Amino acid sequence: MTIEINKNVVKDYLTSLQAEIIESLQLVDGENFLIDSWQRKEGGGGTTSILEGGNVFERAGIGYSCVTGSKLPKSATDTHPQVVNRKWEAMGVSLVFHPHNPFVPTVHMNVRFFVASKPGEADIWWFGGGIDLTPYYTFVEDVIHFHRTLKNTLDPFDKKLYPIFKRNCDDYFLLKHRNEARGVGGIFFDDFTDNNFKYCFELIKAIGSSFTKAYLPIVQKRKDNKFSNKERDFQLYRRSRYVEFNLLQDRGTLFGIQSKGRVESILMSMPPLVKWSYDWKAKKGSPEEKLYTDFLPPKDWV
Amino acid sequence: MTIEINKNVVKDYLTSLQAEIIESLQLVDGENFLIDSWQRKEGGGGTTSILEGGNVFERAGIGYSCVTGSKLPKSATDTHPQVVNRKWEAMGVSLVFHPHNPFVPTVHMNVRFFVASKPGEADIWWFGGGIDLTPYYTFVEDVIHFHRTLKNTLDPFDKKLYPIFKRNCDDYFLLKHRNEARGVGGIFFDDFTDNNFKYCFELIKAIGSSFTKAYLPIVQKRKDNKFSNKERDFQLYRRSRYVEFNLLQDRGTLFGIQSKGRVESILMSMPPLVKWSYDWKAKKGSPEEKLYTDFLPPKDWV
Repeated sequence: MTIEINKNVVKDYLTSLQAEIIESLQLVDGENFLIDSWQRKEGGGGTTSILEGGNVFERAGIGYSCVTGSKLPKSATDTHPQVVNRKWEAMGVSLVFHPHNPFVPTVHMNVRFFVASKPGEADIWWFGGGIDLTPYYTFVEDVIHFHRTLKNTLDPFDKKLYPIFKRNCDDYFLLKHRNEARGVGGIFFDDFTDNNFKYCFELIKAIGSSFTKAYLPIVQKRKDNKFSNKERDFQLYRRSRYVEFNLLQDRGTLFGIQSKGRVESILMSMPPLVKWSYDWKAKKGSPEEKLYTDFLPPKDWV
Repeated sequence: MTIEINKNVVKDYLTSLQAEIIESLQLVDGENFLIDSWQRKEGGGGTTSILEGGNVFERAGIGYSCVTGSKLPKSATDTHPQVVNRKWEAMGVSLVFHPHNPFVPTVHMNVRFFVASKPGEADIWWFGGGIDLTPYYTFVEDVIHFHRTLKNTLDPFDKKLYPIFKRNCDDYFLLKHRNEARGVGGIFFDDFTDNNFKYCFELIKAIGSSFTKAYLPIVQKRKDNKFSNKERDFQLYRRSRYVEFNLLQDRGTLFGIQSKGRVESILMSMPPLVKWSYDWKAKKGSPEEKLYTDFLPPKDWV
C-alpha cells in the first residue's frame, strides 16, 4: 500500500514550526524578530524572520520558503540525476543563530521536503534536514546534552538513524580546504524516504520539536558568561570559517544562489561581524587550542 | 619565426615586481610586511607577504607563487578544455589591499603566466591578469585617474586592448546573484597570446609597473580623510560583497582551493573585518546611495 504524499500538511507544519521557534527565541532574547514576506518571480515565496542586534543574539535568522521551478540547477542534478527535466517544489525551514556571547555556540537547523514531478509518472520525493552546533568556547556537558537530545529524538524511530545521521553530519560539515570540522556536528540527512511519507514526516516533526530542547538550555546556561576582547576576537575569527563553509561548500546556499533564490534570505546565515587573520594559530595549552584539539575532531559524544 | 617561451625570465620578473610593490607600500604605510615562504606538497611554492593592522592598510596581501601539477582542477578545464591531461605550471603575483580609511578604495591586481605541456607537443601557454578598484566613498577624479593610467599603459601596445580589457573586467567582476558590480572595474584579461611571447611579456611588465601609478596617488590623497562610524560601517558592510564574489565566483580563488593550494595564501584576499546586515538599503540622496547609482553601474571613465 502506498501512502500518498501531502504537500499541504508539510507546509502547514513548517510555518507553525517557524512561528514556534520565533516565539521561544523572543522570550530568551527580549527583542522581536522582523518578519519579511517575499515572492519569487520564478515561482513560490517565503517568509524570512530576522533579529539583528538583540540582547542575546547578534544575528538570528529563520526562514520558511516554498519555491517551485521547471528546471533544477546544477547543484541539485549533480547529486540527484534522477530529477533532471522534472518540475520541482522545495519547501523548508532553515535557521542560523549567531549569539553575541562567545560562550554560546552558533546553531543551524534545516528541515526540508522536496518533490519532483512529471505527468504520468509517480512523484519523486524526499525529506532532508539536520541540526548542528558550532561553538567557540565550549563545555563538554553542553555538547553531550546537544547530541543526547538528538539521539533521544531519533531512537524511537530507529536506533540505526542517529549513528548514520551523526556520521553524515561530520562528513558534510568538514571544511575540505582546511580539513577541519565546522563545529561539533549533530545530525544531517538527505534523500530520506524510509518506509513511507507518514513515517518520514513524523521524523521531521520530531526533529523540528527537538531544536529548542537541544539548543536553548545551552543558551540559558552560558548567555551571561563574562567575556573579554580576547574571546570576542576569537569568535569573530572563527566565524570566518562559517562564511568559508557556507559560500564554498554548502549545498543549500549554492542551490539557492544558482536557482536565483532571494539573496538576502539565503545569506541570512552569514555572521553579523567576521574577522580574517593571516595564518592565525592558537597558543599551546590555551582555551582556543582546546577547540581544535578536543572539540572539532569528530568523536562520539553520547 | 616562433619565439620560445622563457619561464625563468617570467619568474624573475614576478619576484622583482612583488619586492618593488612591497617597498612602495611600506613607504606609504610605515609598517613592514611579514614575508612567509612556503612549499606545496604537490609541486611548487611561493612567498606570501602580508601587512595586517598597518597605519594605512588594515590588511594588505601580496603573494608570488609558482605551482605545478599533473592534472588540472575542474575550474581550469571547464574554461580551457584544450589543457586536459597536460602537466601544468602556473605562476603569478596577486595582491589585494584593504585600507583602513573608507575613502581609500580596495585594490586588486593579478598578473599570471600559465604553461601546459605534453611530451612531443608544443607548449600551450597564455598570460592573464588585471587591475581593478573597489571604492566605498569615492571621487569621480580618482576613478578617472585610475582608468586613464590603465588606458595609457595599454595604448602603446594596441589601442584596441583597453576597451576590450575594460569590458572583460566589468563582465568578470559582476556579482551575478546581486546583479551588481564589485567595484568600478579596471582591466581584466585571460588567455592572452597576441603576437608572440615577447610582446605578451612586455605587456604584462607594463601592467605590473602601472600598478603603483594607478593606485598610490589615490591612497596619498585620501588616506587622511576624516571619517566616522557611519562611514566605517558602510565600508565593513560593502566588504561582504568582496567576500561573496571571491568565494562564490572568483576563478583564481576557486582554482586555488580546488587545486589544493595553500589556503592562507589564497584567502589573504579576504577583508580583515566584514559585516553582513539584512537587506540593507542606502538612504535616498546619501553618499552611500551614490556608490550604487553613480559608480557601480559600468560606464566609460576615460
